[in-house]
Amino acid sequence: MQRQAYKNLFYLGGFGVSCFFSGVYFQKRYTIEGCDLKNYPALPIFGTVSAATPFTPQVTEQKVSVVNRVSQIMKYGFPSLDNIRSFEDYVLSYDRRNRVANWVFEHLTAEKVKHNPEVTRATCEFKPDESIHTFFRSQNSDYKKSGFDRGHLAAAGNHKSHQKHIEETFFLSNIAPQVAVGFNRDYWNSLEKYVRNLTKVYRNVYCCTGPLYLPQINSDGKKYVKYQVIGENNVAVPTHFYKIVVGESEDGKLDMEAYCLPNTVISADTPLTSFRVPPESIERAAGLLFFDNLSRSKLCKINGKKN
Amino acid sequence: MQRQAYKNLFYLGGFGVSCFFSGVYFQKRYTIEGCDLKNYPALPIFGTVSAATPFTPQVTEQKVSVVNRVSQIMKYGFPSLDNIRSFEDYVLSYDRRNRVANWVFEHLTAEKVKHNPEVTRATCEFKPDESIHTFFRSQNSDYKKSGFDRGHLAAAGNHKSHQKHIEETFFLSNIAPQVAVGFNRDYWNSLEKYVRNLTKVYRNVYCCTGPLYLPQINSDGKKYVKYQVIGENNVAVPTHFYKIVVGESEDGKLDMEAYCLPNTVISADTPLTSFRVPPESIERAAGLLFFDNLSRSKLCKINGKKN
Repeated sequence: MQRQAYKNLFYLGGFGVSCFFSGVYFQKRYTIEGCDLKNYPALPIFGTVSAATPFTPQVTEQKVSVVNRVSQIMKYGFPSLDNIRSFEDYVLSYDRRNRVANWVFEHLTAEKVKHNPEVTRATCEFKPDESIHTFFRSQNSDYKKSGFDRGHLAAAGNHKSHQKHIEETFFLSNIAPQVAVGFNRDYWNSLEKYVRNLTKVYRNVYCCTGPLYLPQINSDGKKYVKYQVIGENNVAVPTHFYKIVVGESEDGKLDMEAYCLPNTVISADTPLTSFRVPPESIERAAGLLFFDNLSRSKLCKINGKKN
Repeated sequence: MQRQAYKNLFYLGGFGVSCFFSGVYFQKRYTIEGCDLKNYPALPIFGTVSAATPFTPQVTEQKVSVVNRVSQIMKYGFPSLDNIRSFEDYVLSYDRRNRVANWVFEHLTAEKVKHNPEVTRATCEFKPDESIHTFFRSQNSDYKKSGFDRGHLAAAGNHKSHQKHIEETFFLSNIAPQVAVGFNRDYWNSLEKYVRNLTKVYRNVYCCTGPLYLPQINSDGKKYVKYQVIGENNVAVPTHFYKIVVGESEDGKLDMEAYCLPNTVISADTPLTSFRVPPESIERAAGLLFFDNLSRSKLCKINGKKN
């Protein structure tokens, strides 16, 4: 009887072990081959910004939100890919030769441009962008006594919902030498306000801003690019600035407007529409492709005219 | 008795099921969390060149050899990463705004610069680089009647071991407007010969060549960058050209030489050494970092002087 009990126990053990390995096999077969990547925390399901860091073991919530914000801002494509610098509420590409950004990208909505009364511009300070190599980094001293304003590319006024957002627009990588009276403080400021007001018309406004260095025909009949450089770091003074804007309506319709303004005194009564130019002309001059993820044939209007 | 048998069968079934799920749990715990990424074919274990193509199922031998050649040429680092274009025997970064390369990189050895008698320059033709977007692509028509030569950055004379290699140096992405007599056809050519001859001294010669747009002080005491642009595509005429060379001896010793020449007639009796400049000065002016993978403290000589 006791021998029979041992025998039963042996069979039972064998049965248990075989069930265990059946379970192992089952799980292996249906998880390794069909490995559910969405549940695997280290794998980027969506594209990552940097090729150098495809594997991020610890992603904090804040980092995730910044990456999400970058993909929101850059929804319609990067105009170029050199020296990308992403902040919490805007993204730029830095021109290391001219010490001014190539382009600065913003995403504006009515909610985001609302002025949070706790946010103040008064404590903001222009500061060098330490992420730029010292050889190519512009400094406050470069602008001092140059006669030019430190003009914002991503406008401070667009980023008043959080103190950190407005503070980040004061990095010198977002700044370019602008004519002060009659331009930065006046006409350019009006253009910034105009773009901000587009959030009353469109659910989403995507705004790309940058410098241009346009050629002119000289007295010898030849074309020359000529621009001043200021300070020890030879910060380029752009001849012109562009703004190219896409507005996305509630119903998903898309319009584009493109502006090119000379970096000079502009009379306040000059109509803004007189600075509208074909988007391609800015692309050719800047060496950039704007809203490249968006087929231009999908735009309803370009510069107010049916496309 | 029959009831007891059913009861035993029930316990046995329960035992089997619990063993099965133990097995499932065991396998899940020790494979999903520690998932062996090396066996998962879609994940790049090693760094990839392009973020867009981390997985290349079919790589031909020729492609592998081109990639190997690129890594040989670029051994000491990319000066920048915008608009990289790799050919079979040289690599460049294209400046879409100026329609001239930012830099062109070559790797020369005594064997590679030897003239294969089957290779001829006579059948080579300057041709637009179709890989560049039409907005930014320079054309032969831009150079026509401009008064400037179509000057090679990667010298044709460095790539005479294969017909395809020399032909690829005639892509207009490798070409810049150069003053013809007294520069491209004379002094610049001597510098190219000098660099080629360094392969008699060094086992490996790494050569980076590119344009500069240097500021000058005007009569108003301010600094201006001024350069001509030619043709319908506004191809920039560089004010200067640089060459920065690293020679690697048989014993692994490294020397660096850096030259900056004005794009103008230079008298043949001007010593080449008079155009030597600190490598940092070219880096600052060009917005580039040369031989960045190579600590400058490891160089034995810079411009012929002990480092």
